[in-house]
Order: sequence, then C-alpha cells, then structure tokens
Amino acid sequence: MEAVRRKTRVVTAGSLLIGGGHPVSVQTMTRTDTRDVEATVAQVRQLQAVGADLIRLAVPDREAGAALAAIRRRIDGPLSADIHFDHQLALMAIEAGMDELRLNPGNIGGGRRVREVAIAARGRPMAIRVGVNAGSLEKRLRSDRVTAEALVQSALHQAGLLEEAGFRDITLSVKAFEVPLVIDAYRQAALSTDYPLHLGVTESGSELTGSIRSAVGIGVLLAEGIGDTIRVSLAASPESEVRTARTILASLGLGPPGPEVVACPTCGRCELDLAPIVRAVEERLAGVKLPLRVAVMGCVVNGPGEARQADIGLAGSKGAAVLFRKGEITGRLPADRLLEAFLFELDRFLAVSDDAEADPAAGTRGGLPPAD
Amino acid sequence: MEAVRRKTRVVTAGSLLIGGGHPVSVQTMTRTDTRDVEATVAQVRQLQAVGADLIRLAVPDREAGAALAAIRRRIDGPLSADIHFDHQLALMAIEAGMDELRLNPGNIGGGRRVREVAIAARGRPMAIRVGVNAGSLEKRLRSDRVTAEALVQSALHQAGLLEEAGFRDITLSVKAFEVPLVIDAYRQAALSTDYPLHLGVTESGSELTGSIRSAVGIGVLLAEGIGDTIRVSLAASPESEVRTARTILASLGLGPPGPEVVACPTCGRCELDLAPIVRAVEERLAGVKLPLRVAVMGCVVNGPGEARQADIGLAGSKGAAVLFRKGEITGRLPADRLLEAFLFELDRFLAVSDDAEADPAAGTRGGLPPAD
Repeated sequence: MEAVRRKTRVVTAGSLLIGGGHPVSVQTMTRTDTRDVEATVAQVRQLQAVGADLIRLAVPDREAGAALAAIRRRIDGPLSADIHFDHQLALMAIEAGMDELRLNPGNIGGGRRVREVAIAARGRPMAIRVGVNAGSLEKRLRSDRVTAEALVQSALHQAGLLEEAGFRDITLSVKAFEVPLVIDAYRQAALSTDYPLHLGVTESGSELTGSIRSAVGIGVLLAEGIGDTIRVSLAASPESEVRTARTILASLGLGPPGPEVVACPTCGRCELDLAPIVRAVEERLAGVKLPLRVAVMGCVVNGPGEARQADIGLAGSKGAAVLFRKGEITGRLPADRLLEAFLFELDRFLAVSDDAEADPAAGTRGGLPPAD
Repeated sequence: MEAVRRKTRVVTAGSLLIGGGHPVSVQTMTRTDTRDVEATVAQVRQLQAVGADLIRLAVPDREAGAALAAIRRRIDGPLSADIHFDHQLALMAIEAGMDELRLNPGNIGGGRRVREVAIAARGRPMAIRVGVNAGSLEKRLRSDRVTAEALVQSALHQAGLLEEAGFRDITLSVKAFEVPLVIDAYRQAALSTDYPLHLGVTESGSELTGSIRSAVGIGVLLAEGIGDTIRVSLAASPESEVRTARTILASLGLGPPGPEVVACPTCGRCELDLAPIVRAVEERLAGVKLPLRVAVMGCVVNGPGEARQADIGLAGSKGAAVLFRKGEITGRLPADRLLEAFLFELDRFLAVSDDAEADPAAGTRGGLPPAD
C-alpha cells in the first residue's frame, strides 16, 4: 500500500516543517497548569522524550500568557499556544516565541484584532492552526446537525480572515466526535485547499476506546494520503496520546523505523499466559528506536515458523519455551521464570545492537547482530 | 461517509449470514482447552454476552474433536472449528454440527481428503473459511518477502480446491502482521472474487497496541466497503477482542446503535482527573444497547456546549461539577464524590430508559426520556 500523499504548501512551526511531503508529525497537549512553569517544562520534556513533535499549552489567561516566555527559554523544540477569546494572549504567545498558535480568528473578535495578530506573526518561523470543532461551530453554520460541509466552510472562512490580514502559514483541522463525519470533513478539506491538515477525532474516549476510534478515523485518512500532522485526543495522559499516535503512524509505515512486537493471540493450543509478557516487552521497547522485530508466540509448532522474520522471539507451549533468532531455535528458557528470562535475553540482544549501531561495521542489517 | 459495500455471495454459518450486505459480524476464538467442555461452554457464553457473533474453537486433536458434540448441544448460536493437518478432525466437526470450519485444503493433504470434507459439509447450513496467513504461506508462493499477490493467489487456489469438490459456501481471509500488506491483500481479494471476506491483522500485539493496529487495518478496509466479518487478534482475552471489534464497527456506524461516551482530553483548564470517570462510565455502559450519548467534560465553559447532543453528562472544573441533560444544566454533583454521584445519576437515567424501552410509547427518540 503506497498512498500518494496529498500535495500541500509547507508550513513552518519553529524547527518543525508541516506538509509538503515532510514526515507526518505527532502533536499533543500538556495537562499541567501553564502558569506552573516547572510542572509544564517537566511535562513538555517527558512528551518530547516519548516522541511528541509539537506540544500545545493551554493559555486560559494573562498569567498563563506571561509564563510562556519562561517556558520557552527552557524548552528546545516546537511549542504551540492554545488561544481563545482574547487576542492579547495571542500577541503574548507570539512575543514569547511560540512556534504555533491554535487560534480561530472569529473567536478573538475578527477585524482589527486579527490584523494585529497577523502582523505580529508575519515573518516569523511560526504557524497558525485554524481549528474548527463540530462542538463549537459558529451558530450561523449550524443547523440541527453539524455537516462536513459546514466544518470545512467555517475553517476556510476563518483561514481567509488570516490570509486577508497577510498571514499564510496556516494549517487546518476540522474535528468532530463522529468518525464518519471526521473522515468526510477532511476529505472535503483536502479537495478544497492546499493547507496542511492537522487530523484528529475530538473527545474520542478513554485510552483504549479513544485510541481505537482515533486509529480508525486518522488511519482511514492517512491511508488515502490525507493528513500532515496528527493529534490523538484521549481522556488519558498526554504520553498515551503520543504513544497511540506513533502506533498509528508506525502501523502504516509512516513513522520512523522502530521495533515491532508480533504476538500470537494464543488459543486452546497454548497453556501459557502470554499477555503479561507481550505487555512487558512492549514497555521495554518503548524508548528503543532500532528497527527490530520481536515475536512472542504461543507454540513451538507455529512459533518459529510464523515469526520467521523476527529478530528475536520466544515460542512457549505447555510448560516449555524456546528462544529463537531469525526463525531458528537458539536456546531454551525456564518456563517458570519466562518473563524475566526473556527480558534478560532481549536486553542482551539490545546491548549488542546498540554497540553495533554505534559502529555500523560491527553488525549486519541496520546494526543487528547475526543469529547465534 | 457512506461507503458502498462490496457485493459478495451470501454464506450461511448456522444462524449467521455473512456477506451480501448483511451486517458485518464479529468473530473471536476461545482460549480454553476445547477438551474441557465446561470451561469452553462457559467462555463461549461469556463471549456471546459481549457481542461475539461467531466463536471459534481450536481442535488440535481427536479428543478435542470428540468434545465438539457436547459443546454444540449446550450452545445456541454460531460456532466455528479451527482445523489443521487432520481431515478427520474436520469430519468430526461437521458431524458435531459446527457452523463453520476454518480449514485450508492444502493443509489437510488435498485431493481425496478435501473431497470427503466437501461432501460431508455440502447441503448443511455451514461455511468453510479458507484462511491464509503470511506466516504460514505455502513455500512455493513465498519468495524472500510475502506479497499481497501471493496471499490472494494462495487463498484463491485453496478455495478452488473446495469449489472443485463441490463446496461453495466459502469465506476468505488473507492476514498478515504488517497493516499495509493486509490492506493491499484484501483490496486485491475484493477485486478478484465474490467470496465474503473475513478481515484481520494477525498477531497484532497487546490489547492496546494490537487494537490500534487492527483498527487501522480493518478500519481502512471497512471504510472502502470491503469486509463482511472481522476478527481482532490480540494477545489479551477474547472478550477484549470482541470489545475492540465492536468499537471499530461502531466508530464507522456499522454496528448496532449503542451508547457513546464523549470525553474531553482535559487540558490546563481542568483540575479534575476525568480519566477514571471515563473508564468507569465506559465499563458501566458495556452491556447497554440503548443508543445514548454520555459526555464527560472538563469545564463548565465548553462542557454543556460541546456536548450539546449528549443525553446525559457532567462538566467538571476546578472543584465544581454540574450534571446536564441535552446540553442543559440540570443539577450539581458533589465534586469530592463525583464518580459515585455521576454513576448514580447514570443508573437512574438508564433505569428510566429501560422502562421507556420496554414501553416505547412512554419515551421519545428510541426510548430515551426527555431532558428534565
């Protein structure tokens, strides 16, 4: 599957380039009180560590606006300010050196205020996202039911206000809770404009339910070549949002190469509880960037065969378990301490791989050691 | 978004009709030892209760094959038998009255054995799924890398062996771990045949990662109108597989109407931890079939507005929380016992709704009481 990516203009948000074929980036939003500089800086750094490319901060009042400069000084990497109602907050965010504003011109009073913001932002390496949500659509565009047409019309109208004021580095989002509405709206936006599109399903639910709903909506669009940056909205930690977004991208081959865990669902053939092992392996690999495949399989019959392409794996069955590399059995693992034993082998494998990565000549295939 | 569903022949698996525009059904597989009739019957019933339409049992040996008749007698509703290597197991499953076999003719020795199975199955209200997996593809079709073409070619070849033997009630699956390969293979299968397609991403990972990867792969295909029955394969409980499958279908409007939980991701504006409330509400609604929308929102400013279409919801903020129905604030909730208080209100709401559902004249809009 090689979707032709939709052509868009390129928009700059600090060191991040959005659109124009640049890698699809991952966004999230802090949960801290932005006025609390220490807590916010700490959370931003955590989110950068798990792979957030652009991190948005709520700016509910002037005190939060005043904190942005201090946060900015301590953070390398793209930051976005979420602005509502008060255009002075937008001016404070621009002055503080934020790389993006999320701002709807209609929401800050239009006219002169939008021009002031556009003039202040113009010429800086920053973007403005016009973000329309079904839940807060202007009344004049809302009939009984919010339509995709209305979402796109609103977004284009708001973007037009910025363009009229001379600001062009715009991205758009047209979000809703209902996945089919989201898909329709972005498809229409993709046909109507060359702005990079920020994809998202709003208020999508708990970590699991919201991740599934977001994966469907964002996945369908990305598979059509639509979408330049994504945000998964979960009633969970922002780290969870980033992990889910990264998993969506990786599943479609749109993320950087990284580890994959092949895990058999187990069935009546298998007497081992593999689920905790799979979870532990996924956690162990969370920070790993090597493109390796790990397999956790339930039986010796299919395990090594089905995981032929795995770099390292285990195949367990009724009380027995074997270690294998590249589809070949290379050792046995004590079944009663399977989790610890396999994590130990995985760590050993990663340690050798890290060395190999540091000295590419030492290993084969992207720094991975050959099977032993 | 109204995808035109692909036209397929209709295949019967007991009381379940697959393909031909019938609702997309949900499959899973028991984790019990099939020889343990009690445990297997209990798990099948649990899976039926959470919405599994077709439940597959592993049949690794004759003892498991012999248990099928006893399980069948105690279970109403579609059951499938997973058969490998031994065609006698297929004959035992047919004789026991199973509604589907998952069986690859090439895997049971071809020729005479396939004809025996086809003759035994013919004329019964049962289906055979030819299920090709990238991991176990025939060697002759496997080059260095498994391709979508090879998966489809293998599936069509195997289905052809059944057709030659006079059996036509066939569904196909062409699964792999890599989501883009899965998407490609099913797209090609959809163009090549009118068999109903059973969608799935194999060995897709832990509950969360595997659900995300499955939602992308299955979601992309369903959004294109491809897919007649789905199975999510997780290294987790079969109940989790069913829940994820149902969430995927619901997100695309392909499931039966049911409850939805709108949950804001919270941000710097919100001082309440909504995640546990969202999880508790989703759990409370797990068995509910009413088409109602529940909103759990972080602030009073946007809460009632954004959740305008919610039937019942809470909007919390810095220590305060309100209850609302249909976007109108209808009461206050004690912030220190928010979870219990909201679940109490939700239960009260559901109780009234159940009464209304039992007597449709008593309520409006699908049995829901009007806002009070």
